[in-house]
Amino acid sequence: MAKSTELFLSYIFNMRPVKKRLRKTGKNHIMAKTMAVNAGSSSLKFQLLEMPAEQVIAQGVIERIGMDDAIVTIKYGSEVQGERLIGNSEDDDHIVILKDGKGHKYENVLAIKDHQQAINFMLQKLTDLGIIEDFNEITGVGHRVVAGGEWFNHSVVVTDAVLEKIDRLADYAPLHNPANAMGIRAFQKLLPNALSVAVFDTSFHQTMPEENYLYPLPYEYYTRYGARKYGAHGTSHRYVASRAATMLKQPLESLKLITLHLGAGVSITAIKDGKSLDTSMGFSPLAGVAMATRSGDVDTSLVYYIQEREGLSNDEMLTILNKKSGLLGLSTISSDMRDLLDVQDTNDHARLAVDIFVNRIVKYVGQYIAEMGGVDALVFTAGIGENSSPIRKRIIDRLAYFGIQLDSVANEKRGEETEISTKDSQVKALLIPTNEELMIARDVEALK
Amino acid sequence: MAKSTELFLSYIFNMRPVKKRLRKTGKNHIMAKTMAVNAGSSSLKFQLLEMPAEQVIAQGVIERIGMDDAIVTIKYGSEVQGERLIGNSEDDDHIVILKDGKGHKYENVLAIKDHQQAINFMLQKLTDLGIIEDFNEITGVGHRVVAGGEWFNHSVVVTDAVLEKIDRLADYAPLHNPANAMGIRAFQKLLPNALSVAVFDTSFHQTMPEENYLYPLPYEYYTRYGARKYGAHGTSHRYVASRAATMLKQPLESLKLITLHLGAGVSITAIKDGKSLDTSMGFSPLAGVAMATRSGDVDTSLVYYIQEREGLSNDEMLTILNKKSGLLGLSTISSDMRDLLDVQDTNDHARLAVDIFVNRIVKYVGQYIAEMGGVDALVFTAGIGENSSPIRKRIIDRLAYFGIQLDSVANEKRGEETEISTKDSQVKALLIPTNEELMIARDVEALK
Repeated sequence: MAKSTELFLSYIFNMRPVKKRLRKTGKNHIMAKTMAVNAGSSSLKFQLLEMPAEQVIAQGVIERIGMDDAIVTIKYGSEVQGERLIGNSEDDDHIVILKDGKGHKYENVLAIKDHQQAINFMLQKLTDLGIIEDFNEITGVGHRVVAGGEWFNHSVVVTDAVLEKIDRLADYAPLHNPANAMGIRAFQKLLPNALSVAVFDTSFHQTMPEENYLYPLPYEYYTRYGARKYGAHGTSHRYVASRAATMLKQPLESLKLITLHLGAGVSITAIKDGKSLDTSMGFSPLAGVAMATRSGDVDTSLVYYIQEREGLSNDEMLTILNKKSGLLGLSTISSDMRDLLDVQDTNDHARLAVDIFVNRIVKYVGQYIAEMGGVDALVFTAGIGENSSPIRKRIIDRLAYFGIQLDSVANEKRGEETEISTKDSQVKALLIPTNEELMIARDVEALK
Repeated sequence: MAKSTELFLSYIFNMRPVKKRLRKTGKNHIMAKTMAVNAGSSSLKFQLLEMPAEQVIAQGVIERIGMDDAIVTIKYGSEVQGERLIGNSEDDDHIVILKDGKGHKYENVLAIKDHQQAINFMLQKLTDLGIIEDFNEITGVGHRVVAGGEWFNHSVVVTDAVLEKIDRLADYAPLHNPANAMGIRAFQKLLPNALSVAVFDTSFHQTMPEENYLYPLPYEYYTRYGARKYGAHGTSHRYVASRAATMLKQPLESLKLITLHLGAGVSITAIKDGKSLDTSMGFSPLAGVAMATRSGDVDTSLVYYIQEREGLSNDEMLTILNKKSGLLGLSTISSDMRDLLDVQDTNDHARLAVDIFVNRIVKYVGQYIAEMGGVDALVFTAGIGENSSPIRKRIIDRLAYFGIQLDSVANEKRGEETEISTKDSQVKALLIPTNEELMIARDVEALK
């Protein structure tokens, strides 16, 4: 990579200071590049980072894998998500320059038959675009894996035995684990020399004590089927907890934190002594608070009651609970919090959906304060947590009793690490953008 | 009733002071008697009270209605539940005298074909035993009704329209409402002049706001099926809340209370401004914390997961959640808390069941403290709440953060109104025996 390009990139990426980015590894003048991958059944998201500098070099997604009109998008040179300028790049009409004048976006629609071909195309394109010089620059690939069961309580180097376990855990995540495993295998073929690492959504929560992870069901279901709480979003909770400790200038091990991952999926975690003590998602991501389209906790009797009256199969009922409930179900108009906030003053259904969203979160926070015997800080992250100051305000205002006071000015910030509680607030509130890809890349580094 | 008998009874009943009991009504030298009734599908429990003195004159149960060996038990003359003395009463060999030498228990096994016959037999027996002189002394009958839906937010005089609604609400309580209605009809035939009152388990919770009673499901299920939280044990929560206000010498309307009805069924209620704000049971009594044999809250995905692997029907799965889960399911040995406490030091399953029982209660208390923005007192009632000092201790100790301090000596009390927190505890903890029958009788009086 040319020096000028490197300086240019270091300028426009704002995640870490320039000097850190320019630090070279011992082995090589070109730093090791690590790819963080999230493979779905028909999609593949990736982020390419230079490590240990923790600089994002490129990120992208391939959608509609298996179709004649798969879509490949790669952004590089900027993290700004601006609009297109009029006209395309001179060199390649698939490339547009983003509004800030710095970033580029490559976009193409073409037939892609499988993950193997998708990854091959993407790696070739990264080379063509000059983002990497050759495939071997990528020395590590970290894969998000949804279900790690009780077998994985931390990230691991992928071996045949690990892959077999990921396959076997498909029972717990039938839509995700097979796709995750497919992604791992495809990368292993194309990058046989890169270290392959599996990073599990569930592993952070493996520290939960028995009294929190077990359900009050016949015990044999636990031994026979692994019927227990696994939680989710572990990588996100782990990342923001670590950043919170840095922001608070206290060792993570000394803190009582409640991390609120508020995205389309929502999970809330009680973190004590640096470990997940309890979390709102359960055996599956359906449990806990109300989400964009998921119901969260519902009386099981009621689920059966509705199912029988509507004449639905178990799968159909589960689809309704996962895809048609939550904010969408209550509001009847949208699963997107922004839409609901826009119309809540005039639309009772929208207002109700927002009220219930806040209500369930407040109650989970109360649970976890009781469980930990206090809390030092609440951490807001993910789409809604990072960007919605009105939702943060409503949650924090309802928790005033516990000694949390909102700094209304600081709370106007979006997507930037900020202490949003007042200076003399007993309990702190922090806005911390999550970064699962970085956490994955760090885990790859740690296992090298 | 002979003066001597009356004095004798007034002596042995310790619920209210003697002088109050001797106060006569204006109309009659004999006070109005009110019967509180809880009719099940094959059983009928009753309590006969003299009102407004609030004296229990007799109580009993008829079990196995419809069988050739139905069992009738009537206790009178004492509330002490002692063992039998050797030998029976001189007058009737079905009567035994209780150990304290004062109370009597009538017991008989005979064929009883239906509720009508059961009630007829019971009333006749009350007359034979000299407890009432004739049926017309009973001027009011209050019936416990399990499901009141959204139609009933307080107790009501039973009319044809009310009965029709109780019938229609059988959808929500298929085992209970039809039996409750049957009991009402049978009493109406035998005591046509007595005021018939329906007291609903759910009505106290009708004050819950929409954000607490609605689930994050498609809204149409609420309008179409009444899919919402109704709660249960309303009469018990209402009774102990009222007693708590008296004990705390503060108006109920000024208090934030959390009432813990810990019996075989467990429900926890947040009571603010004298009204139910939220409660742990849901559409049905299956929801909430872990109970004797009910699971409480479980991830619905997991329920379906188990159901499919075990090859169970919806009804079979619901039976497991209702009858084989909770303390019984976790411990694998007993649904009775006393059994578990006895062996918890040596039996890991028993210990786990107790841990989870306490854990879920602590979390619900935390929820409600968050929701109300504080709490003035916790109130323990029902079987476990009234009698298990170790369970009360474990719950209160885990809530120390909120300013609740246990008075270990006071906490040794059982089944007697007691302040079990220390004098300087910021949040009070109270032991208050519940009395649903008395509440039912009071509602009958209030509607006369």
